[in-house]
Order: sequence, then structure tokens, then C-alpha cells
Amino acid sequence: MLNREVAVLRIGHRLVRDDRTTTHAILVSRAFGCNTMYMTDVDEEIKNTINKVNDSWGGLNEFKLEIIDNWKKLIKEWKEKQGKIIHLTMYGLQINEVIDEIKIIGQKILVIIGAEKVPKEIYFLSDYNISIGNQPHSEIAALAIFLDRLFEGKQFDRRFSGGKMKIIPSDKGKTVIRKKK
Amino acid sequence: MLNREVAVLRIGHRLVRDDRTTTHAILVSRAFGCNTMYMTDVDEEIKNTINKVNDSWGGLNEFKLEIIDNWKKLIKEWKEKQGKIIHLTMYGLQINEVIDEIKIIGQKILVIIGAEKVPKEIYFLSDYNISIGNQPHSEIAALAIFLDRLFEGKQFDRRFSGGKMKIIPSDKGKTVIRKKK
Repeated sequence: MLNREVAVLRIGHRLVRDDRTTTHAILVSRAFGCNTMYMTDVDEEIKNTINKVNDSWGGLNEFKLEIIDNWKKLIKEWKEKQGKIIHLTMYGLQINEVIDEIKIIGQKILVIIGAEKVPKEIYFLSDYNISIGNQPHSEIAALAIFLDRLFEGKQFDRRFSGGKMKIIPSDKGKTVIRKKK
Repeated sequence: MLNREVAVLRIGHRLVRDDRTTTHAILVSRAFGCNTMYMTDVDEEIKNTINKVNDSWGGLNEFKLEIIDNWKKLIKEWKEKQGKIIHLTMYGLQINEVIDEIKIIGQKILVIIGAEKVPKEIYFLSDYNISIGNQPHSEIAALAIFLDRLFEGKQFDRRFSGGKMKIIPSDKGKTVIRKKK
């Protein structure tokens, strides 16, 4: 399950207002074992954030952030050559009902999340529209829950090699091993 | 499991920069079945956001947002009279290892999350420090995963009554029932 390739496409980003949520979405994609994140409307400098995290906490070269202009083109290419498209939306079919079907998809998965409303055509271009509950909440939470269910919690055992620091899980306080590079 | 009382305490909020993540954290607390959310450093007008969501999507009077000045006092009172305190942190014990123990706690739970770094004493005041993976990501994602594991996904079956609108989960597009009040 863990070696399944998953990419994330996040559509939309409003400057300043969404800066923090964009960072959260990227960090969740990375920490929960995705391979690539595609974003629209963000500034190139967002790559510095992820590079710093990789440098400190490892996993360099395993997670790639790509800024794209044309999400329609990406979706089209993905459908033709890569795999299935899953759009996370509060209007979709409930995750509890469909996750077993998703788990046996034998292809790569592109997960689409929106910073706010996404264009209507996304609902029709996607192979699955899946809700993480039918109440409004957060695309960051939705992405995390989807990946946790897909990877069955095993994403937290994944190793991120090559970082300067490594956490030893601790009952109280912080235990961090600092490596010499 | 679903009728367990869970409150969330979010510590810290930087004006403007954190506005969106604060909203996400509140909406996750509400949508994932918590009863109360305590926040520090936020403006009273954040309550309008949650009131609007309750008005549209239901659940009025079931989820309460409280702005507090003194989190230390809240934690002290909680420990003495209410229940257990669980702090979500990337430095804590892994959720996969401890969730079974957490599930059988026969008391209310206060979940603490931080907008950024939390004061060191939180680690020692808490009954449990739990990591949702030992990589940096998002307190919104961490909260969502913790609640999903605690409530075993059943939080998505919870009814939010009294709203103007209700979603019927749909394969494509949006199906919403608008109620007359």
C-alpha cells in the first residue's frame, strides 16, 4: 500500500490570505507520503519552505513540488496516461462508503483539493468525488484523512532519510537526534 | 464512542497570518464532533464565522466556541475536575501505538494544539503527548487524524440538525436540499 504513487493537485491560492494553509497542504502531502504536489497561483518562493523542511527533516528527492499554469492540461494528461483522479469535496460520496473501492485501484492516484471553491468541471473530470464528511471544514484535514485511510496509518512509519534532525517519539518533552552530515 | 465529550484548546494565533488556519481548526473541531473549542488571542468576530456555518449547515447549540485569556487556568481546572489532556505534537508518542489506550479513557478529553510552538510546560501538564507522525505538517491535519481515529470514522454519520441546507452525497456535482425554516 505504501509504495503506491500519489500526487496532489491544489487549485487556487489567494495571496497572503492562503499562505499558511498552502504551507500546511504541502507539508501534509509530504509527511503523509505523497510523491508530487502540483500547485497553481503560488509564488516560486514557496519552494524554499519545502527545501528547508527536507534539509532539516529528511526525505530529500522523494517529494517534489511543482508549480503549474494549466491544471486542465495536467488533468487531461493524467487521465490519459497516469491514473485515476480523486476530488475531495464535501458534496461527494462518503469516504467510509468508497475507501475499499479506492484501495484496490491498481493505478497512480491524483488527489485534487481546492483552496476554496473549485470550478464545476472538476466534479466531472474526476473519476471519484469523495467527501470527508458532508460538513464544511478544511482541505488540509480532508487530504490528511484521505491519505491516512488510503495508507492505513502506515505512512507514519515511512523513513525520511538524509535530514539533519530526527525525532525519537517521547512521552514528555522533545527528544531530537542531530546528525552530522 | 461518538458520545464521548471532547474539547479542543488551540494556543496562539498571529493576526492575519493565522486567520485561515484558525478557521480551519474551528471547522474541523465542529465537523469532527467536538463539543467545545477554546482559543486564545483571537478576535471575538471569529464567532460570526462559526455562527454562519451553524446557521447554514446545522448543529446549532452543539458546538461552542470560547475565547479565553488564561489557558493555564483552563488546563488546571480541566485536570482537577474534567478529564484527561492530550497534546498533539510531532515530538510525542506515535498515535498508532497509543490510540487503543486513549480509546478506553473513561473521561472527557481536552485536545491541545498549537498554532506554532507551544510553551514547554504544555508537554508536562499534558497526560499524553501524541504525535501524528514525527514529521512537521499541520495542527489542523493532526487534529483531524486524532479525532478520526478516536471516533473511528463514525463522526461523519453524526447529524447536524436545524440548518438551512443539507448535502446529499453525490457521485458528480452538488446535491443540496434547501430547507424552509
